[in-house]
Amino acid sequence: MMPVLTIALDAMGGDIGPPIILSGAIKALQHYSNLHIIACGDATTINQITQELSSDIASRITVHHCQDEITMQDKPSFVLRHKKDASMRRAIELVKDSRADACVSAGNTGALFALASFILKTLPGIDRPALITSLPTQATQPVWLLDLGANVSHDAETLFQNAVMGAVLVQHLTNNMRPRIALLNVGEENNKGNAQVKLANDLIAQTDSLNYIGYVEGTDIFTGKADVIVTDGFTGNIALKTSEGIAKFLFNEIQHTSQSSWLHKLFSMVALPLFRRLLKKMKADQYNGASLIGLQGIVIKSHGNASANAVFHAIEQAIQEVEQQVPTKIKTTIEHILLE
Amino acid sequence: MMPVLTIALDAMGGDIGPPIILSGAIKALQHYSNLHIIACGDATTINQITQELSSDIASRITVHHCQDEITMQDKPSFVLRHKKDASMRRAIELVKDSRADACVSAGNTGALFALASFILKTLPGIDRPALITSLPTQATQPVWLLDLGANVSHDAETLFQNAVMGAVLVQHLTNNMRPRIALLNVGEENNKGNAQVKLANDLIAQTDSLNYIGYVEGTDIFTGKADVIVTDGFTGNIALKTSEGIAKFLFNEIQHTSQSSWLHKLFSMVALPLFRRLLKKMKADQYNGASLIGLQGIVIKSHGNASANAVFHAIEQAIQEVEQQVPTKIKTTIEHILLE
Repeated sequence: MMPVLTIALDAMGGDIGPPIILSGAIKALQHYSNLHIIACGDATTINQITQELSSDIASRITVHHCQDEITMQDKPSFVLRHKKDASMRRAIELVKDSRADACVSAGNTGALFALASFILKTLPGIDRPALITSLPTQATQPVWLLDLGANVSHDAETLFQNAVMGAVLVQHLTNNMRPRIALLNVGEENNKGNAQVKLANDLIAQTDSLNYIGYVEGTDIFTGKADVIVTDGFTGNIALKTSEGIAKFLFNEIQHTSQSSWLHKLFSMVALPLFRRLLKKMKADQYNGASLIGLQGIVIKSHGNASANAVFHAIEQAIQEVEQQVPTKIKTTIEHILLE
Repeated sequence: MMPVLTIALDAMGGDIGPPIILSGAIKALQHYSNLHIIACGDATTINQITQELSSDIASRITVHHCQDEITMQDKPSFVLRHKKDASMRRAIELVKDSRADACVSAGNTGALFALASFILKTLPGIDRPALITSLPTQATQPVWLLDLGANVSHDAETLFQNAVMGAVLVQHLTNNMRPRIALLNVGEENNKGNAQVKLANDLIAQTDSLNYIGYVEGTDIFTGKADVIVTDGFTGNIALKTSEGIAKFLFNEIQHTSQSSWLHKLFSMVALPLFRRLLKKMKADQYNGASLIGLQGIVIKSHGNASANAVFHAIEQAIQEVEQQVPTKIKTTIEHILLE
């Protein structure tokens, strides 16, 4: 029999609301018979949604009532000081207290980053956590990009830590024990980039346990040239959101063009649904969970504007990370590298 | 009669070679009867290409023989020290010596940046030049993005100078006297971003002569929300190249999907040519020139891998900047702002 696995779920976070979050959770409970979910949030709201469930599913949901919730507009500093009984905070505390194996939230990323850092603390050797997700590529395997905006500092040490964390996560989630690690830069030649990137390049290249392939450019993200692409949180966030922006722009252009003639009308019948599917695939952070890695605990971010399916995938990713004991493996790898 | 306008052209730069560069130049000469071009490069090669031109066009091309050329692999430091008779360097020197009104090159961007900075010097109040180009948007007007990688430093003063230069250029090239200036960031709220971006936000907001609309995210680049989007050269380069990468990825996905059924085959007949056109529109830096602004002289970069048409557009942009006296206007605006 598989061991029981407990996920603390922030049932209130994000723009999508408790019904969609909980329907993602119910799907996960149906799929994983050893899964238990602690739903943090307003008990009345949660009970209304869960009361009609079958007894098997209902028996594996525990409600953890919280009076507060965090809005998408709340500032992290305000949340830290004043929202002590918020569902997101309680979900993280359950991980801290070993009552849950991981937590999942679709809420405010800045607040999640601040609360998780404050409550769980980072692993030894890691200064700040990083946000990582997988994106589709032209190749058969996806690419993992980090940091996506958890940590906007640009220093070389942060980039180096991101490389190590990304490598460990991808090793254990994809069974690729030699993931190709690359550093995002403005060119592939050694003289390109700013001082921080050049120093990070040296630090990563000196680390024998990393399969480092050097610099890649923005054009290489989606080619499958690397398995893990490392950058700072500022650049990573801009790259991810620019990709979303351009995909939407192209979609609108196709939609617009397709109004002009019968050929284009025909085109729109076939192209638009296909393009819509592609767009969904592109907005990977809405469809996969993003991991906040580098903490003494597992925290998965589901997109704040996502579907029940996205919540389901975020819970799945949490389960995988629990099974693979990702934080312990990052800790061991960092210790090993510091001894190299 | 219109005054004679002289452009110094690096006929050797880039991967496309002298025949394509010169055919772009010939198109410009046909289009602008007051245009004179000084073609810098190997005289034998240039004369071979130009010998069959009509006397009107031929009379407006002067060959400036140079023994050297700069490859795409040459490091800027090497170019500065050892390539004294390179076509790119000579073209810039012609601007410095007032023998040409502007220069155009499709060559190595790093070398162009280094040579132009060294020979022409920056304008008073500008620390380093920036590279700016226009990109298509969902709105009727394009957006101008800077810096695209000329200057990879992240400091607030650089971002502020980029804002001023971008505003002046767009005012004079598009006749929009109040262009909306935005700063690229990881969120729109005031607490978002790193220290440098927050400080730049304050500096730009305090400058009354700039029509500053605050932060925009990567998703906003292509919506037409802003006329000028300001960022550092590292982030700007990654954003631009990621856009190119995603557009290619989507194109490949559509091509791949369209092989699978008759419906998709039909789709590919209509979709692929349309998508190819869109892709061309997207790769705007290949189709428009990019200006290296902030210098005491006009320098336009044409894409190193572009077509004769791209060279023609780069020459057109040089002509516009000469007519609008962009460097003088940036200088006046900076002086005005320093007095504010």
